[in-house]
Amino acid sequence: MGYYNYNLTVDKLLDYGSTVYSSKEIVYRDRRRYTFSKFRERVEAFAQSLLKIGVKPGDKVAVVDWDTDVYMTAYYAVPMIGAVLHTVNVRYPPEVMLKTVLHAEDKWAIVRDEFTPLLEKGKAFLGGLKGVITYSDEREKVKTSFPTHDFWELQESGERLPPQEIKEDMQATVFYTSGTTGEPKGIWFTHRDLVLHSMSVALTTSKPPLRSSQDDNFMILVPMFHVHQWGFPYVTMLVGANYVLPGRYDPAMEIELMRKEHVTFSAMVPTILYMILSHPNASKYPEVFKGWKVMIGGSALPTELAYAARKMGINIAVGYGMSETAPVLTVAYYTPEVEKLPEEDRFLQQIKTGVPIPLSQVRVVDEKGNDVPRDEKTVGEIVARAPWLTRSYYKDPERTEKLWKDSWLHTGDLAVVDKYGYIRIVDRDKDAIKSGGEFIPSLILEDIISTHPKVGEVAIVGMKDEKWGERPVAFIVPKGDLKEEEIRQFLLTKVEEGKLQKWWIPDRFVFVKEFPKTSTNKIDKKALRNQLSSG
Amino acid sequence: MGYYNYNLTVDKLLDYGSTVYSSKEIVYRDRRRYTFSKFRERVEAFAQSLLKIGVKPGDKVAVVDWDTDVYMTAYYAVPMIGAVLHTVNVRYPPEVMLKTVLHAEDKWAIVRDEFTPLLEKGKAFLGGLKGVITYSDEREKVKTSFPTHDFWELQESGERLPPQEIKEDMQATVFYTSGTTGEPKGIWFTHRDLVLHSMSVALTTSKPPLRSSQDDNFMILVPMFHVHQWGFPYVTMLVGANYVLPGRYDPAMEIELMRKEHVTFSAMVPTILYMILSHPNASKYPEVFKGWKVMIGGSALPTELAYAARKMGINIAVGYGMSETAPVLTVAYYTPEVEKLPEEDRFLQQIKTGVPIPLSQVRVVDEKGNDVPRDEKTVGEIVARAPWLTRSYYKDPERTEKLWKDSWLHTGDLAVVDKYGYIRIVDRDKDAIKSGGEFIPSLILEDIISTHPKVGEVAIVGMKDEKWGERPVAFIVPKGDLKEEEIRQFLLTKVEEGKLQKWWIPDRFVFVKEFPKTSTNKIDKKALRNQLSSG
Repeated sequence: MGYYNYNLTVDKLLDYGSTVYSSKEIVYRDRRRYTFSKFRERVEAFAQSLLKIGVKPGDKVAVVDWDTDVYMTAYYAVPMIGAVLHTVNVRYPPEVMLKTVLHAEDKWAIVRDEFTPLLEKGKAFLGGLKGVITYSDEREKVKTSFPTHDFWELQESGERLPPQEIKEDMQATVFYTSGTTGEPKGIWFTHRDLVLHSMSVALTTSKPPLRSSQDDNFMILVPMFHVHQWGFPYVTMLVGANYVLPGRYDPAMEIELMRKEHVTFSAMVPTILYMILSHPNASKYPEVFKGWKVMIGGSALPTELAYAARKMGINIAVGYGMSETAPVLTVAYYTPEVEKLPEEDRFLQQIKTGVPIPLSQVRVVDEKGNDVPRDEKTVGEIVARAPWLTRSYYKDPERTEKLWKDSWLHTGDLAVVDKYGYIRIVDRDKDAIKSGGEFIPSLILEDIISTHPKVGEVAIVGMKDEKWGERPVAFIVPKGDLKEEEIRQFLLTKVEEGKLQKWWIPDRFVFVKEFPKTSTNKIDKKALRNQLSSG
Repeated sequence: MGYYNYNLTVDKLLDYGSTVYSSKEIVYRDRRRYTFSKFRERVEAFAQSLLKIGVKPGDKVAVVDWDTDVYMTAYYAVPMIGAVLHTVNVRYPPEVMLKTVLHAEDKWAIVRDEFTPLLEKGKAFLGGLKGVITYSDEREKVKTSFPTHDFWELQESGERLPPQEIKEDMQATVFYTSGTTGEPKGIWFTHRDLVLHSMSVALTTSKPPLRSSQDDNFMILVPMFHVHQWGFPYVTMLVGANYVLPGRYDPAMEIELMRKEHVTFSAMVPTILYMILSHPNASKYPEVFKGWKVMIGGSALPTELAYAARKMGINIAVGYGMSETAPVLTVAYYTPEVEKLPEEDRFLQQIKTGVPIPLSQVRVVDEKGNDVPRDEKTVGEIVARAPWLTRSYYKDPERTEKLWKDSWLHTGDLAVVDKYGYIRIVDRDKDAIKSGGEFIPSLILEDIISTHPKVGEVAIVGMKDEKWGERPVAFIVPKGDLKEEEIRQFLLTKVEEGKLQKWWIPDRFVFVKEFPKTSTNKIDKKALRNQLSSG
């Protein structure tokens, strides 16, 4: 008794949201909806049931699901009892998925019906699982060969959760990221990380141009297995926005939900935006896109796509971060100088990588660790500090040491800074092309090529070169009939306009029907490089 | 080296503000102005000078000043080197002021020229002071009989501050509060308290109806010695608002600054609002009040004053907290239900005590610790938890134990809760009047009396009564000619309207010219009670 040592734990976010925004709703497709206050009751009930079936503090609980209310329940209920939420990447090949479950040493799993066959296939490796919680949308019991509980029964039979002794420095989540390179790395966060990240993101989205508020309806199109869905399942409790969950991604369903639920705020990678805007229904219902606030992240936003979105009245701000950073470090919101610019110039700032969000410290530094000048030319690496960055890779001290060299988190992203202090990523360190000792910024090059009317998607990768070390190769998904000579001429005019160095022009152009994609819908440059080296 | 253990320290707020809002300004009257980035440079220089003259981590540094840029510099520079900012209440009688300096064991003092005589008077008691930093607005050197440094010299000669090893749980501030009762109590806060409080307040003020943003210009009319000026010297760095400092309070100067600096956001106690609105210049420049966002706290807002402010186009939201809570716990911002109400009903919610701000947990409980029903009738005590509440009274374990009874901070404020979950304070515990075993809510009674056109200010206090235990007495500052019978008749009509219980009507009405005020401009009910008991 006496002084209450308040810990920054995720239950505090739910407590706030369900108190002040009690009538706001969580909506799963056209199937289920809960007010925040009802949701809190169900979260507590499910959490209490988890304790009853034997889930212990520190136990890892895997979730294998699309973006549903069940997942959202787990986002709170699992950490609230001191257990660890493992958000399993369902886009991984089955073997990789199982590997992550093994590596995390998961003790429990919450599994949607359609994923249970996967579990059975891996049965031989999953001896560590103490129990599985399954569910189907139709409320049919889903049996497995593991000790099985029904989610709905647990969620309904539980009672009010007694106060838990959880501390803010306890681990709350773990997930695996491969990016576009090699073996998945385990990344983990504490309660405190999640709460502070949420506070900062909520404060940032309340700023212009997004100005999020309780009048917004969120539908986040970042998978829930992907870096806490950028934090929004927690952020929504602070903002007081309705939260729409689309289940398995499907552009037609998403557009339908936008109409029905009056979605006004979303976040996604460029590919998803492209898929929605190019869906036939997008032009049928132009009104749903007017004023739509969209935070874009995950990979570079092609300028052409940004302009197309703007034309439809979409209000875009780019965000940036990585799995290791929970994820948000910067957002391209308005500084006072940028807010005063003419609309066109302001727009060009909104689609850059942005400026630090509150409490995050982000610098672009040269090899000696000095800040690069604000000249939009000098390339440096983005390094960061914030109160929500991962301490270490899970069971991987070697990569951890590299990540935290000199006490700054090294993102491996190369960027320039403009006179307003806005950062702009020009390359991923590992995708960088060094030609004759100088960097060719592949993102800038891609962006320029993407403005050609016959170019659908484009990716630049480096190819070994005897003379120059490396030379760029352009992979292009053309729209209609596109000839190499046409694109070469186009780039030469861009050289004349001063937008491009002549020696950046790729040596080869490879036309393909579609790109290999990673599990998070980014273009898989590693696969493209392999394609090149194998001819 | 390796993982950077990010501490929530006040320098992080300055770093953020001076990076993203570098061109925003801190303005002291018509005398001095700094951009945030220049300000940061001067703060670092001053902090470095403090180290040079021998200020050590843990040293208490008293500040004796009006609301100036010098004070604002100290708000950051002192905690940034691990020293403790003691914000001395300059409205205390000299002897009480000296007592607090002694009790805090201050080692250094930053003193504005006009306050140095006070220091000399207390010389005999101030042997603990190692040095004094003085300044005058005219930049004249101000000598004292202590080892003396000139503020401007220190602020100009210093260099960039090397990274400091300060931890978030280190004490950052201390100050004394007497409220309206007895001996001043020392209250202290850590860096972490200040940072988390700032994040939550910034997020709250960004919500409707205040919707603070970088487009706002703040002028906070809460003295800087008073509970961190409600946190705004730190909050402004997160919001990115210009920050106007009015020096010694003077309504004419304040109105002048509102015009010149286009002030759009302020915070103050009701008395200050009353003083500004009743100043002759207020009616001369009605345009400066249109859309003015004002957070009101510190004591109950009389309905009449609220309506007068509303008529002038002022956008009010009441806030609530106490010295022990850093201070903000609740603000009367809009929940979604309230936002949908007609303007008149919404306004009535805005002037209540409000709902919890993010991360704060506020309940109104009966004697058994159960929440009172949302019936606007049942009176309970406000208790709170938040990550920024004071751990203890400085060197006073006994009062600390009472404060933190049952692990909830006991505010001693009595309140009711309405159907929307808005809290409304009906009395201070120690001001409460218990008559025939039942509470008479003095704030409600005062509020009704204040609506009589001939009543200027009103205060209700309890008087011992043989039969009833206590009976209420009304002290009134009349506007013009007011007779006791008139006010009695008025209250009887209110009884008929169902707004008042007949037995609440005061037994006595005492007409006075003005009220005794506390050092923070609240009506001093203790003095009124003493007046009564001494006849």
